[in-house]
Amino acid sequence: MGNLERIRTTQGGEYVGRRVRMAGWLHRLRRLGGINFLLLRDGYGLFQAMIEDADVLAGVRDVLPESVIEVEGTVVAELQAPGGVELRDCAVRVVTPVTDLLPFEINKKVLKPGLDVFLDHAPLGLRHPRKRATFRLFSGLLGAFREYLAGQGFTEIQTPKLVGTATEGGANVFSVAYFGGQAYLAQSPQLYKQIMVGVHERVYEVGPVFRAEPHDTTRHTNQYTSLDAEMGFIGDHSDVMAVLTGVVRHIFETLRRRHAADLALLDAQVPNVSQSIPAVRFREAQQVILERFGEDCRSEADLSPQHERWLCQWAQEAYGSELLFVTHYPAVKRPFYTMPDPTDPAHTRSFDLLFRGSEIVTGGQRVHLYQQLLGHIEKWGLDAAGFEGYLEAFRYGMPPHGGFGMGAERLLQMIVGAGNLRETTLFPRDMKRLSP
Amino acid sequence: MGNLERIRTTQGGEYVGRRVRMAGWLHRLRRLGGINFLLLRDGYGLFQAMIEDADVLAGVRDVLPESVIEVEGTVVAELQAPGGVELRDCAVRVVTPVTDLLPFEINKKVLKPGLDVFLDHAPLGLRHPRKRATFRLFSGLLGAFREYLAGQGFTEIQTPKLVGTATEGGANVFSVAYFGGQAYLAQSPQLYKQIMVGVHERVYEVGPVFRAEPHDTTRHTNQYTSLDAEMGFIGDHSDVMAVLTGVVRHIFETLRRRHAADLALLDAQVPNVSQSIPAVRFREAQQVILERFGEDCRSEADLSPQHERWLCQWAQEAYGSELLFVTHYPAVKRPFYTMPDPTDPAHTRSFDLLFRGSEIVTGGQRVHLYQQLLGHIEKWGLDAAGFEGYLEAFRYGMPPHGGFGMGAERLLQMIVGAGNLRETTLFPRDMKRLSP
Repeated sequence: MGNLERIRTTQGGEYVGRRVRMAGWLHRLRRLGGINFLLLRDGYGLFQAMIEDADVLAGVRDVLPESVIEVEGTVVAELQAPGGVELRDCAVRVVTPVTDLLPFEINKKVLKPGLDVFLDHAPLGLRHPRKRATFRLFSGLLGAFREYLAGQGFTEIQTPKLVGTATEGGANVFSVAYFGGQAYLAQSPQLYKQIMVGVHERVYEVGPVFRAEPHDTTRHTNQYTSLDAEMGFIGDHSDVMAVLTGVVRHIFETLRRRHAADLALLDAQVPNVSQSIPAVRFREAQQVILERFGEDCRSEADLSPQHERWLCQWAQEAYGSELLFVTHYPAVKRPFYTMPDPTDPAHTRSFDLLFRGSEIVTGGQRVHLYQQLLGHIEKWGLDAAGFEGYLEAFRYGMPPHGGFGMGAERLLQMIVGAGNLRETTLFPRDMKRLSP
Repeated sequence: MGNLERIRTTQGGEYVGRRVRMAGWLHRLRRLGGINFLLLRDGYGLFQAMIEDADVLAGVRDVLPESVIEVEGTVVAELQAPGGVELRDCAVRVVTPVTDLLPFEINKKVLKPGLDVFLDHAPLGLRHPRKRATFRLFSGLLGAFREYLAGQGFTEIQTPKLVGTATEGGANVFSVAYFGGQAYLAQSPQLYKQIMVGVHERVYEVGPVFRAEPHDTTRHTNQYTSLDAEMGFIGDHSDVMAVLTGVVRHIFETLRRRHAADLALLDAQVPNVSQSIPAVRFREAQQVILERFGEDCRSEADLSPQHERWLCQWAQEAYGSELLFVTHYPAVKRPFYTMPDPTDPAHTRSFDLLFRGSEIVTGGQRVHLYQQLLGHIEKWGLDAAGFEGYLEAFRYGMPPHGGFGMGAERLLQMIVGAGNLRETTLFPRDMKRLSP
C-alpha cells in the first residue's frame, strides 16, 4: 500500500477523483458474476469498493467477514452506490485475518439472533450498524445532558460509589467486603448531590448506580447510568421541572441535529418539546384513568406501568404531547427527603416525567430544614446515625432545593422503541448475567 | 423582599446603579464600629454588602455564619470593595437560620483543621472558597477531557462496574455478593474499552474504578475517577502519545481560559504544553538517573516514586518541560495485553506520562492478534476461560490499537500542588474512611 493518509469512510465524498486509503472491517463481499463489491466498515460508516481486477478478487475471495483490511482506491461518483460514491481500481491488504466463522451474520439489515444469544456475543454483535447507532445515540444523549446543565451554571461532581450506609435505607443494596468490614454500592448519588448544593449550588453527575433488585423484567437491570441534577434556591418543584424540560428538549434537539443518520437507521424519532410539558396532579391523573379508561385506582398510592401507558395515551390525545409530568405523589410512596406539599401534607412537591408509556425521570423538592429532616428520618423508621455527614450539611444551612434522576438507558430505550432495557444497555448486568 | 429576579454574585458588576436581589450563605459579618460589612457567598462567588441602617444591623447581628440569607440592595461602585462593587441600602432576610456553632471557621483565607478533621466535616468544609475552587477545577478538567476526544471522533461509553472476573487477573479487587454468587468491582474499563474499539474505533470513558489496595499512602485511595481512552488503527504507541498530548494540552488551556480565578485563588499554574512532550526510553531514563543523580537502578524493572521525581527534575533542566514521557517499560511489569516491542521483546510499546514528579497516565499499544493474546494470557498465568467475551472480539478481527488511563484526582493533585490525593478527591474512600 502507498503512503496515503488514511481517511474515514464518512469523508469519502470529499475526495471524488482522488486516490485514498481507508481501513476497517470487511463487512460484506458481494459477488455478482464479473462485478464484485466489497463493503468496508470503519468506526463511523460503510463504504463500497468495486473489485474488478481478477488478482485483487483472488486476494479477497476467501477473506472472512470481520477481517480487518485496508483498501486503497480512487473515489468515483456512482449513483448506484450507497452514499453516491465508491472506490475503484482498488488494492486490498488484510491487516488482521479472521479464521473462525461468525456465530451469526452481522452484515444484514436485521440482527437475527434473539436477545440472549446477542448478549452472549455482544463483543461481536455490537458491531452491527444498528447496534452501533444505538450506542452512538447513547453517547450523544450523555453529552447533551451535560452540555445543557453546564450552560445553566451546574458543576459536575463524581461521588463515592462505595458507601457505609444504604442511601435511602431500603433493601436492594449490594454488599461489598471492605477491608474486614462491609460497604454498600450506592443506589444513587442522592445524598451527596444534596450535600454539594451547599458548595456549588447547582450540580450534576453522570455515573453508574447499583440496584440489587431480584427482578427479571424487561424494565430493570442491576446497574444503570444515572443522570442526576440538584439545584438550590428554588421556589418549589416547578423550578426543577423547568430545568428538566430544558434538559430533555436539548437532548432531543441534539440527537436530531447531530445524530440524524443514527435515528434514521433505527427508524426512530424524537419529539419536539413545546415550551412547557403538560402536567397533571397525581389525584387528577387517577381521575383521568377512571374517566377515560374505566379503571378506578383512586385508592392506590402509586401508578402501575399500565397506568403510565394510559396516561401517556391520554396526554397524546389531550395535548398532542409524548411527554407528561405527573406531580404531587403521595408522601407514603416517596423517600424521606421529599418535601411535603404544605397545603396538603399527605402529598409531596414531587414529580415523575412520563415518556411514551414509561416513567423516565423522578424528582422533586427536598426537605431543607434540619429539624424537619430529622423528623422525617425518624418517621420513615431510619437511623439518624447512618446519615451523620448528610445531616451536617443541613445543620449548617441549606437553601430550598430540589433535583431529579433519570436513567440514561431507559430514556434511550424509549427513544429507539426497544422492547427490553437490555437492548439499550451496553453489556447489561442482571441476575443471570455478569459477562461479557 | 421585593419581586426582583435573583442575580448571582458574579453578575453584580453588570448592575451598577440598579437594585438587585442576591441569595446565598452568610460567609462573614465584619463589624467596624459604625460600618458593617456582610459577605454573602453563593454557589459562584462572594459579594460584599454594606450594612448601615441600625434596624438592618439588629436583624443580622446574631445570625450565625452559614445561615442562608437573601440580600436586596443597590449595586454601587466602590474601589475598596472586593471586586470593586458592593451593595448599599440593604434589606436582609434569613431563609435558613443556623443554630449550631461551626466546628471550624470556613471564612478565613486558610482552612485551618488538619486533613482528617476536614474530611470528617467535608459537607461543611467543602464550602470553603479554596476547596470549592479545587472541585470546580475538577469539573473543568473532566469537561475538557471529553471535549477534546469528542472532537477527535471518540465515542463515549459507560461500561459495567460489576464484573465476573478480576479485570487484569490481579489481587486488590473488591468482592460483591451477587444474588447468591460473587462479582467483583472493575479495577478499570480496560477490557471493555478494547472490545469497543471493534465497534466505534475510538472510545473514551469517565467513571469510577475500584482498587482494594491495602495501602495507607498519600498517593492512593480505593475509588478514583479514571479518564480512559482507546483507539484503533494506530501505527504504534506514539500515535496514542500524540492524542494524549492533545488531551493534556486542551485540559491545561481550558483551565487557564475558563478557570483563571480558581487557579489564582489556589496559587496554581498549569504548564504550556509545547508541540510535543519530551520522551525518554525506560533504559535511557535509568541511565539518566545514574549519571545525573548517582543512583544505579539499571537492574530494576520499574521506576520508584523517587526515580519519577528525579526524572521530572531532569526534564525541567534538560527540556524546560514539566511533563515527560517514559517509554518502552519492561514487559515483566506490564499487564498481559501490552504489545511487546518487536525489536526488543523484553520491553514494550508502552509509556507513562510523568508530571511534576508523579506518574499521571499509563498507556501503550495492545496486542491485537488473537493467537498472540492467548499466548500472553497463558504466559501471565491467567485462565483464558475468564476472558471469553474479551477474546471473542479478537477472534473476529481487531485492528492495531492502544490507549491510556489517567487518574483525574491525581492529575488535579499535581495541578494544585496538593500533598495528599485525598485533598483533591471528593469524599475519598480509603481503608479507614467510608463516610461521609
